[in-house]
Amino acid sequence: MSERSHQQTGRTAAHDSAFLRACRREPVPHTPVWFMRQAGRSLPEYRKVREGIPMLESCMRPELVTEITLQPVRRHGVDAAIFFSDIVVPLKAIGVDLDIKPGVGPVVAEPIRTRADLERLRPLEPTDVPYVTEAIGMLTAELGATPLIGFAGAPFTLASYLIEGGPSRTYENTKAMMYGDPQLWVDLVDRLADITAAFLRVQIEAGASAVQLFDSWAGALAPADYRRHVMPASAKVFDAVAEYGVPRIHFGVGTGELLGLMGEAGADVVGVDWRVPLDEAVRRVGPGKALQGNLDPTVLFAPRQAVETKTDEVLAAAAGLEGHVFNLGHGVMPTTDPDALTRLVEYVHERTAR
Amino acid sequence: MSERSHQQTGRTAAHDSAFLRACRREPVPHTPVWFMRQAGRSLPEYRKVREGIPMLESCMRPELVTEITLQPVRRHGVDAAIFFSDIVVPLKAIGVDLDIKPGVGPVVAEPIRTRADLERLRPLEPTDVPYVTEAIGMLTAELGATPLIGFAGAPFTLASYLIEGGPSRTYENTKAMMYGDPQLWVDLVDRLADITAAFLRVQIEAGASAVQLFDSWAGALAPADYRRHVMPASAKVFDAVAEYGVPRIHFGVGTGELLGLMGEAGADVVGVDWRVPLDEAVRRVGPGKALQGNLDPTVLFAPRQAVETKTDEVLAAAAGLEGHVFNLGHGVMPTTDPDALTRLVEYVHERTAR
Repeated sequence: MSERSHQQTGRTAAHDSAFLRACRREPVPHTPVWFMRQAGRSLPEYRKVREGIPMLESCMRPELVTEITLQPVRRHGVDAAIFFSDIVVPLKAIGVDLDIKPGVGPVVAEPIRTRADLERLRPLEPTDVPYVTEAIGMLTAELGATPLIGFAGAPFTLASYLIEGGPSRTYENTKAMMYGDPQLWVDLVDRLADITAAFLRVQIEAGASAVQLFDSWAGALAPADYRRHVMPASAKVFDAVAEYGVPRIHFGVGTGELLGLMGEAGADVVGVDWRVPLDEAVRRVGPGKALQGNLDPTVLFAPRQAVETKTDEVLAAAAGLEGHVFNLGHGVMPTTDPDALTRLVEYVHERTAR
Repeated sequence: MSERSHQQTGRTAAHDSAFLRACRREPVPHTPVWFMRQAGRSLPEYRKVREGIPMLESCMRPELVTEITLQPVRRHGVDAAIFFSDIVVPLKAIGVDLDIKPGVGPVVAEPIRTRADLERLRPLEPTDVPYVTEAIGMLTAELGATPLIGFAGAPFTLASYLIEGGPSRTYENTKAMMYGDPQLWVDLVDRLADITAAFLRVQIEAGASAVQLFDSWAGALAPADYRRHVMPASAKVFDAVAEYGVPRIHFGVGTGELLGLMGEAGADVVGVDWRVPLDEAVRRVGPGKALQGNLDPTVLFAPRQAVETKTDEVLAAAAGLEGHVFNLGHGVMPTTDPDALTRLVEYVHERTAR
């Protein structure tokens, strides 16, 4: 059996999972649940295996990636695994000098500000990320019928780190380039689209059953700017993986005004943060897409009864959707009680069992 | 002439200003312009007079407050002054142990987490803030026909600082109280509503011609939570100053889903950040309100031509409004070129001259 057909067999095992069915807007036995950042600091077993290992290094060790990716599946019984990585991994892999600083985030040694700087962004080859292929091979063998979601950062969000040199609240240099030198901007996000597409293709070829493109900070943009300066690059990424037929999820924070455009860019599933009720989100996204979301992650700090009430509100708002993947409206916060997450998975499964 | 009637005379001088006319949705000679944080770090003359003076202290020196408030009126020719203060000033005035740390923001020594902590929030009396009354008296004399906007933080945003102990990205303790102990939460924001109302009354009594209530971080809330847990307290503030008949402006960042509710709370003018085009915002707010906004403040880092194009887009989206006050969609960023702001005022005035 060729490697390709082996991985296709892996996807076949997951094909009828509640998660993939919901993404395809097919009937489901229960509403599937997974959590952004489910593999991470909320879990003591994660903190233990990460001890002394820097973030970027942990993304490059296949056994560790496999273990971390599996931890929340074992503990919470979520309906999908998400590949443990970081959005800057493909940039590091092509030689960009960057690091992830604890408590800060990605920090880029030499920010990209000029046309000459673009030369540092060469195309990504599968051989640049052998650890990704290897980890996903191990994961699909372990996961069986549980689907694995591939993971990448979208061109705008990657560009913002490269231009600002690190996390930002205002994206002033990013927007200054976008408004002030739109041709340089287009060339930058176009290169990033190719890198991102290649990174996702590696994951799908290795066996991922779906992909999620994180445009974490796109919500900083007005809709007209998103449409003009960002959407074409995101669309290029989605187009580049369309041939595989795996569901493509798209998510960003504070993207209430962008939901329709993020779907239009080519997403099959649009992730919604907690600010927009799902019954309003579906009006903005329109028919033919599933939605993912959207419990406020801070609700998990409240007593059990309050969590259940707020979960019921999300499920009620989702009642009319063609397809619904339950998730938080943003990543799990590091201080979240893992038991609250496990209870939440059980609760959603019980309340939605058909 | 009594002091009250003297101040009413001050307001009379400003009564026919473009700013107050726009707030009242009356015809204007040109679209009025002012900028949130127009009095602040973007101005070299501000940095000079603030040198060596901590932020909170600077808010308590009437001559300094007057000078800082007037600086952007002199330099940019904006259509309104905004009283230079900080949202935590009334809390400091009633004895809460807090400070504003440069580069961080307000830091509260002992966060409020329990019912017993509420006792630290006593009512605000006008005699707690004599420097406010004094500064506004000096300001209205200097400003003549230019209206002065009073300034306060809204109960939710103040509560978030008091509960978190400082700035937050996630408001997890705030929301934990809101969801987990709703009665304690209500009692907290109700006290803060009274303090805020008293702080605004002092400013109006002293001569402010309008007020802006900043609920800077309300955008972190889902609409159902805003309606249930926040809106009643904000409405109490607006009700408490209704008798004066001065326009009441309400603003927060990322409040696209809350615009209708923020108007419903009692605002006459709803401030809109740059994420929601004004023609969409007016659909959410409904008739009978003016809108304020909403150029992305980062646009000012772009070349002049790009600034003008984006300004034209804002003005085009505002064409159908009953009343429009031009502003940025958030505060002026400290590194903004002040000349770009002056040019922007001129440009809006020219483009909208009737």
